Amino acid sequence: MALLEHIATPADVRKLSPAQLDGLADEIREMLIQKVSATGGHLGPNLGVVELTIALHYIFDSPNDPIIFDTSHQSYVHKILTGRAAGFDTLRKKGGLSGYTARDESEHDWTESSHASASLSYADGLAKAKALTGRGSDNVVAVVGDGALTGGMCWEALNNIAAANRNVVIVVNDNGRSYSPTIGGFANNLTKLRDQLAAIRMQPAYDEVMESGKKTLKSMGWVGERTFDALHALKEGVKYQVLPTEMFPDLGMKYVGPVEGHDLKSLLNAFKYAKRYDGPLIVHVVTEKGHGFAPAVNNVADQMHSTGVIDPVTGESLAQSEPGWTAVFTEELLRAGHERQDIVAITAAMAGPTGLQPFAEQFPDRFFDVGIAEQHAVTSAAGMALGGLHPVVAVYSTFLNRAFDQLLMDVGLIGQPVTIVLDRAGVTGSDGASHNGVWDMAISSIVPGIRICAPRDTARLREEFAEAIAVDDGPTVVRFPKGAVGPDIDAVERCAGGTDILVRPGGEPSVDAIDVLLVAVGPFGQYAVEVADAVGDAGIRVTVADPRWVIPVPVDIIDLASQADLVVVYEDGVVRGGVGSAVAEALAAAEVDVPVRHLAFPDVFPLHASRSEILREYGLDPHSAAEQVREWATSLADPEGDA
Amino acid sequence: MALLEHIATPADVRKLSPAQLDGLADEIREMLIQKVSATGGHLGPNLGVVELTIALHYIFDSPNDPIIFDTSHQSYVHKILTGRAAGFDTLRKKGGLSGYTARDESEHDWTESSHASASLSYADGLAKAKALTGRGSDNVVAVVGDGALTGGMCWEALNNIAAANRNVVIVVNDNGRSYSPTIGGFANNLTKLRDQLAAIRMQPAYDEVMESGKKTLKSMGWVGERTFDALHALKEGVKYQVLPTEMFPDLGMKYVGPVEGHDLKSLLNAFKYAKRYDGPLIVHVVTEKGHGFAPAVNNVADQMHSTGVIDPVTGESLAQSEPGWTAVFTEELLRAGHERQDIVAITAAMAGPTGLQPFAEQFPDRFFDVGIAEQHAVTSAAGMALGGLHPVVAVYSTFLNRAFDQLLMDVGLIGQPVTIVLDRAGVTGSDGASHNGVWDMAISSIVPGIRICAPRDTARLREEFAEAIAVDDGPTVVRFPKGAVGPDIDAVERCAGGTDILVRPGGEPSVDAIDVLLVAVGPFGQYAVEVADAVGDAGIRVTVADPRWVIPVPVDIIDLASQADLVVVYEDGVVRGGVGSAVAEALAAAEVDVPVRHLAFPDVFPLHASRSEILREYGLDPHSAAEQVREWATSLADPEGDA
Repeated sequence: MALLEHIATPADVRKLSPAQLDGLADEIREMLIQKVSATGGHLGPNLGVVELTIALHYIFDSPNDPIIFDTSHQSYVHKILTGRAAGFDTLRKKGGLSGYTARDESEHDWTESSHASASLSYADGLAKAKALTGRGSDNVVAVVGDGALTGGMCWEALNNIAAANRNVVIVVNDNGRSYSPTIGGFANNLTKLRDQLAAIRMQPAYDEVMESGKKTLKSMGWVGERTFDALHALKEGVKYQVLPTEMFPDLGMKYVGPVEGHDLKSLLNAFKYAKRYDGPLIVHVVTEKGHGFAPAVNNVADQMHSTGVIDPVTGESLAQSEPGWTAVFTEELLRAGHERQDIVAITAAMAGPTGLQPFAEQFPDRFFDVGIAEQHAVTSAAGMALGGLHPVVAVYSTFLNRAFDQLLMDVGLIGQPVTIVLDRAGVTGSDGASHNGVWDMAISSIVPGIRICAPRDTARLREEFAEAIAVDDGPTVVRFPKGAVGPDIDAVERCAGGTDILVRPGGEPSVDAIDVLLVAVGPFGQYAVEVADAVGDAGIRVTVADPRWVIPVPVDIIDLASQADLVVVYEDGVVRGGVGSAVAEALAAAEVDVPVRHLAFPDVFPLHASRSEILREYGLDPHSAAEQVREWATSLADPEGDA
Repeated sequence: MALLEHIATPADVRKLSPAQLDGLADEIREMLIQKVSATGGHLGPNLGVVELTIALHYIFDSPNDPIIFDTSHQSYVHKILTGRAAGFDTLRKKGGLSGYTARDESEHDWTESSHASASLSYADGLAKAKALTGRGSDNVVAVVGDGALTGGMCWEALNNIAAANRNVVIVVNDNGRSYSPTIGGFANNLTKLRDQLAAIRMQPAYDEVMESGKKTLKSMGWVGERTFDALHALKEGVKYQVLPTEMFPDLGMKYVGPVEGHDLKSLLNAFKYAKRYDGPLIVHVVTEKGHGFAPAVNNVADQMHSTGVIDPVTGESLAQSEPGWTAVFTEELLRAGHERQDIVAITAAMAGPTGLQPFAEQFPDRFFDVGIAEQHAVTSAAGMALGGLHPVVAVYSTFLNRAFDQLLMDVGLIGQPVTIVLDRAGVTGSDGASHNGVWDMAISSIVPGIRICAPRDTARLREEFAEAIAVDDGPTVVRFPKGAVGPDIDAVERCAGGTDILVRPGGEPSVDAIDVLLVAVGPFGQYAVEVADAVGDAGIRVTVADPRWVIPVPVDIIDLASQADLVVVYEDGVVRGGVGSAVAEALAAAEVDVPVRHLAFPDVFPLHASRSEILREYGLDPHSAAEQVREWATSLADPEGDA
């Protein structure tokens, strides 16, 4: 790491000679493979942008020229070049380096959200502010993947950026992939552009082309008058095009590319031009996800988009794999697919992580990857439902945010049978603040007529998913967390309204005892049983109930609550508008006035750490929860605290 | 109405000769002007699509060929042609015809939401369903405005539609307008296309061109080989292009147009071709909003996009205009604009209706119309805030749905000072289900760190808006309803936490009396005072409190509640996750166990009717509210009902 050890800021990068940059790239790539193999993280995307990021920091002057990374899982190289190389041993760990850009970490990080397609809007806003305030340089750079460009936000932003004359440099990091290969008409067009780059690569003098290649281009034969003019114009600083093609011509965007994304000389030239160019400009950079690490490049599923702990040579996973929620869902979806021709499945560019891939393989005609386009996923599902199908939209909980309006207005208002399967619901852990799925209950429960279930275990996931796809008059939601699924927890009794009683209090009823109804949402059922074991005694009698279908709140819960002295709702989501809040509303509507308490997340964005660390931090692990329940019950029994 | 009276279904339209269709168009236009002048409604958009809609129903076979109208405020002609002409006297009135498509009204109406840019996603879904099920024809038609195409959902849908080979006909109704003129690079490109159409119009033989214009085109001189080929291909049924230009070439979309939108012959030819064409196709139709009604055409502000009761000859408004909430906001925004250079204003294509137009005129550099693009509006505002500005995003409450993720992740997560001004909050009335602003509190209150106020009157709107733009460390929301603002309601007292006491109970405290804390949200403060007057007596003592800033719930409310026997929260929004729900959560967190009741909307989509009719229907008018409060209080005083 002879070069890397001297890099503390981007200014240090600029001290290197262009020739040394290749060596720096090698060192960074080696470091990424070693470090990320040990911690897990977004290895493939970062290996793809090593040269791109070096070249950006070489040419632009961050943070004076803001560089916004879309989703920012590809910001590791940026972190390395901005003084954070030493932090990679703690990547995505509690108190350690975030897996995304993080404003607390560095002045070079402008944004934090890991939701795709937002970078161009940020860039447009920053450019507008720079133009008005006159502060700093007038360059703003956004690095956005071809996958993210399938998201509608990018179109909205480009429509605005294109019509103004501000210096927004849009670097399209085109690796042909979201998680999965990028889909749609746009991707097909990019493939054509990439093929043209492949054609250039066959020529001997590619660098020359990028420099001044007028003659070279002409000698290639396939270059027409337009390219000639464009290159000529380059010298005048007006327009520059290597190939007679464009991106977003509907919007009048100016375009440079395609640029070989692992060739530093090409990148430096392109960015140098972009910096000089007056007005918005797309620089189309063709990269390879996982570049330089054969196990990643050869991984056809996702080119190691995000990996756990792996062997740094073979790329093989070193983590124990346990049967997870997603796998159970996959089995049930396949079963449904075989039984019912009307079942179709939709993903927003994440067939693998959401467990749809086997369905896609077995029922290719009934599987739809719509790109990173949650809005379209949900409304096209409503359209399919109107046409007599029962769509299953599988999406990470956190990304449902993007389709709230569509769920409410396009599905809910006309009562269409669309089943939304929310994976990674609740706190997710190492992916950090914007990947947590703690808001899904609050937003989806707003939709009139919706039915939401939260299975507590494998048996319930099978059962509740079957119930969900049997609903034919409105939307349903099935939500489950990330990771391994625990053992099945049998019910003591199922109430008439579908609620499962998991624990009945032992001993005899007593007027002096405090009767606690502990309503456990989803997999917190397991913890709730532990809480009951820890808390239940002669003075505190705990009933644990799993409503199974949490929205609308089952009448069972009202009945049980009316016999309790205290209702505690224990859920893997936020208090604000969550299931506990809905329970309180239902009790108020029924005029059942029993104290309600919430074991759930406060109004915060939980930071990256392991899921169990975060639960402990917010008092939601079974031990802390038991303490809290005991305290509440005791306080109710003896409000003055005289005990 | 010699022709119109014989039209009960689209089949009746098809019985007319092409020559008779012009007469039908005249009759429909006359009817629209007469009827909509008397009721109010979306006059301009419907006058623009008279011929377009006739031609669609003449060529396609609705409902077997579904026709999806984007936003569907332009579906009046469609309603007239599908047996609903007689209903126009009750347009947008309780129990009458909806101002949008409505599934209960007709089998020809497939969707209901009035939010823009969703139609292409519906169409994609329906086309997928048709392909899989083999049911019905394989044509799906979507009618979408050029304004709606600035919304990201359309890009997501087009990316999917373009890559498949299903028969989705996308009719772009290009009138150059959203409410305001459509903005952005896309609009600029459309302007070029329209200019080309204008050039054709100068030629004598436009119809001939559309028919078989090979020779005519050649004689024009400006038509090259490509057009020749395209027209040749038309006969083979492969490809058709009047002009050597395209729309969405990035996606590989096939394109027909521009078509003269008020010329039935041209339209019939274009749609005939589109019906025959195999695969997705854009038909670009150039229309004029308000066509045939001079007062609408000449209205530069919005070409009578949506109008109240008007004179059917002069177009002058016949409604009394009262000072409204929007006008007060406009004054305060202007004041802020003069005082602070960092104040900028953003609209999603609705500068007029949201009151930004005067700001746009006085501070053109600090005003941004981003198109129908709420996602970009919010995230670009976050970018501007990062750049040191304080953006004010003015949007209808119902359209904030589209930007929930952006408010949470792009603004909230990084705590940027963006002020969202929600106009038309609460029940809006005649615009129907999907225009109601009853969900804004529930969704925006989820955002950690957000501060939300609901001014009750003019004085408070001025005061609270000033407080909102003084916040510099996170998002703020200011929400107010549609229409006229009532008189100022002075407070009896302002509590330390900012809550205003509007009513203190009269008489002496008594152990037998029920103390009711009535928490009034926003303009419901006025009603709450009436409720207190009606209910307050020796047995029921009512305190009315306006928290002013409802989120986070002020500590004042906790203090007041701890002294009450009953807390009632009265708000112009839904119970589910609303302010009352937040109050209950805050009380639970403080372990203040007082019964809470909600005077708010249940889980429904309120249908079109006047605002006061809807409030009555849901028991939220002061009279019903008083009855309800009395009943709750009485029931608490005497739970067994022995009184």
